Amino acid sequence: MKIICPKNELLTGVNTVSKAVSYKTTMDILQCILIEAYDGQIRFTANDTELGIETIVGGDIIEPGKIALEAKIFSEIVKKSPDSDIVLETEENGKTNIECEQIHCSIMGKIGDDFTALPEISQENMVEISQFNLKEMISQTIFSISDNENNKLMTGELLKVKGDRFSLTSLDGHRISVRNIQLGQSYPDVEVIVPGKTLQEVSKILPGDAEETVQMYITDKHILFEFGQTRVVSRLLRGKFYNIDQMLSTDYETKITVNKMDFLRCLDRASLFTRESDKKPIILKIANDRMDILITSQIGSMKEQLMLHKEGKDLVIGFNPRFLVDALRAIDEEEVSIYLINSIAPCTFRDEERTYLYLILPINVNNTDY
Amino acid sequence: MKIICPKNELLTGVNTVSKAVSYKTTMDILQCILIEAYDGQIRFTANDTELGIETIVGGDIIEPGKIALEAKIFSEIVKKSPDSDIVLETEENGKTNIECEQIHCSIMGKIGDDFTALPEISQENMVEISQFNLKEMISQTIFSISDNENNKLMTGELLKVKGDRFSLTSLDGHRISVRNIQLGQSYPDVEVIVPGKTLQEVSKILPGDAEETVQMYITDKHILFEFGQTRVVSRLLRGKFYNIDQMLSTDYETKITVNKMDFLRCLDRASLFTRESDKKPIILKIANDRMDILITSQIGSMKEQLMLHKEGKDLVIGFNPRFLVDALRAIDEEEVSIYLINSIAPCTFRDEERTYLYLILPINVNNTDY
Repeated sequence: MKIICPKNELLTGVNTVSKAVSYKTTMDILQCILIEAYDGQIRFTANDTELGIETIVGGDIIEPGKIALEAKIFSEIVKKSPDSDIVLETEENGKTNIECEQIHCSIMGKIGDDFTALPEISQENMVEISQFNLKEMISQTIFSISDNENNKLMTGELLKVKGDRFSLTSLDGHRISVRNIQLGQSYPDVEVIVPGKTLQEVSKILPGDAEETVQMYITDKHILFEFGQTRVVSRLLRGKFYNIDQMLSTDYETKITVNKMDFLRCLDRASLFTRESDKKPIILKIANDRMDILITSQIGSMKEQLMLHKEGKDLVIGFNPRFLVDALRAIDEEEVSIYLINSIAPCTFRDEERTYLYLILPINVNNTDY
Repeated sequence: MKIICPKNELLTGVNTVSKAVSYKTTMDILQCILIEAYDGQIRFTANDTELGIETIVGGDIIEPGKIALEAKIFSEIVKKSPDSDIVLETEENGKTNIECEQIHCSIMGKIGDDFTALPEISQENMVEISQFNLKEMISQTIFSISDNENNKLMTGELLKVKGDRFSLTSLDGHRISVRNIQLGQSYPDVEVIVPGKTLQEVSKILPGDAEETVQMYITDKHILFEFGQTRVVSRLLRGKFYNIDQMLSTDYETKITVNKMDFLRCLDRASLFTRESDKKPIILKIANDRMDILITSQIGSMKEQLMLHKEGKDLVIGFNPRFLVDALRAIDEEEVSIYLINSIAPCTFRDEERTYLYLILPINVNNTDY
């Protein structure tokens, strides 16, 4: 194989597929990027067997062929090359020469015959969504997946299409995050559970252009994201997702509306007094048109007041401040509405149109805590 | 004690002295900042018994007194407070209330009677140097101290005054770094060994203003750096520093002059092929008006050419690339002159006026390496 590519093309290609390189494996081939140059097309592929990414790289093919190169050293060499054309040429034993201006490098490659090809995905069930929306929705829900592999389904997100509604849902046992959006057209209903890692990597490499779209192809076992010159294929998680509809009541006894940034800054300060180990709650005392935010721990205590708009009953309730912070950060609005029932029922952050919904379980509060 | 200080004054004070707070100790008092408010002056002090820093903080004293507060939580509270006046008020049992706008925090402080005061330093031997120069000279030599506590003297730098010449010298057994400067006037000769940690912290908190100066007061056991409202006191290392003058020969067989950035970029690429563990040298083949830079390791190989100006004999010599990189980064000039003798003698980077000198020992090179 011999190809000539501009440095920037190689760099974009390497950065795109390297998200699917497995660095923690003993199988050498999984640490490689497969480069294939056939039929006028240069294709980079990485595949950790759960997640696979391929992308087309611009350049000229002098001699067709393929080679698998160790991703880490190859990407570093490309990154540190001058901004110029790079020539990649392989010898019969797999040795690969990388030349750029006056620089000559060689690394050993693998013939690549044992590289696991990406699975073929049937292109029947297609759903189209804007790149910007998908990228946003992932970042606005991904924080409440669980990292506990014992609850495998909680390490993924529910991806649901119902008519022209598209939603992502994540939950970790303490909270639920839901984002909803209207698609440009209706599609057949579908519900699958996508691994959190896949969504994280997709959101990293998605350009996020509001004018451009992503095509998602969904089969029984796989999901394929296609955008620009790039295809991301991932296995799905098997099983039935939690029925969250029954947890999401629209009843409430108290509704408060607060300024998001003020509340965030206050929670940030209060978090100084919590340690992961002692799990001290932050206490919200909602009365009339204000909220006292209180925390008392071994470290010390803090009390702060926030003005707010309230409908309904007064209330005292405790939370893990990190959960409140995560939800608030995922909300774009300046003013946020929070719906509460009593001090032991979950609270819900949501807008009128239900484009977002964040449900958080409270922590029991003793009278001695405030 | 009750004081009122603008947030920014507290923050600057905390950031300045916290470099001398010891976070890895079991002695609670060493993790504290001592706040003293007497005679119209608010003073912050931290002292880990090797290094002590005190600084004056602007503000009003409502009630004189003192308190020692845990540095970490106190500095976080100050950092996250709104940009406004902060009131600090202590109760008899040490409880300290910190109030800013609508925020009320309390943390437990210590009366501070067991806080170790900074040693009194005789102000006889004073040497004055510009803040900018001292800050620069430290950063240009500190990288070649040793972190091996078995060679205690190598963990510090030789600070030397001879007439109107001031120099800093560090060495780690593989290389020597020297910086020289002319002072505004002559002072009595002095040679002391200052702990590397002290110099690092001084360089961090020195504003580095070219118009402002640092006063250094040197005694048998201590050095005091005084600048602005801040005083840094450190113990000195006891012992006789290595006689480096006998190692620094001015003889050479080959002198090359290279472009610093070109050489740095080339070394940066070559470093991709080294692992700390296998210690493969980078090989410089100097012949006529060019230098081939070669490296061959388990990872692969690289060869690159640099044009240069040469006087004297051709030469092949090997180095740890990191040592070359450290020296080049510490040099301001665009073109750097390097003096060599043969493939087993140290090479020297220096300018005509000897304001800087970096000596590096080579690594033995086998014929099989290139």
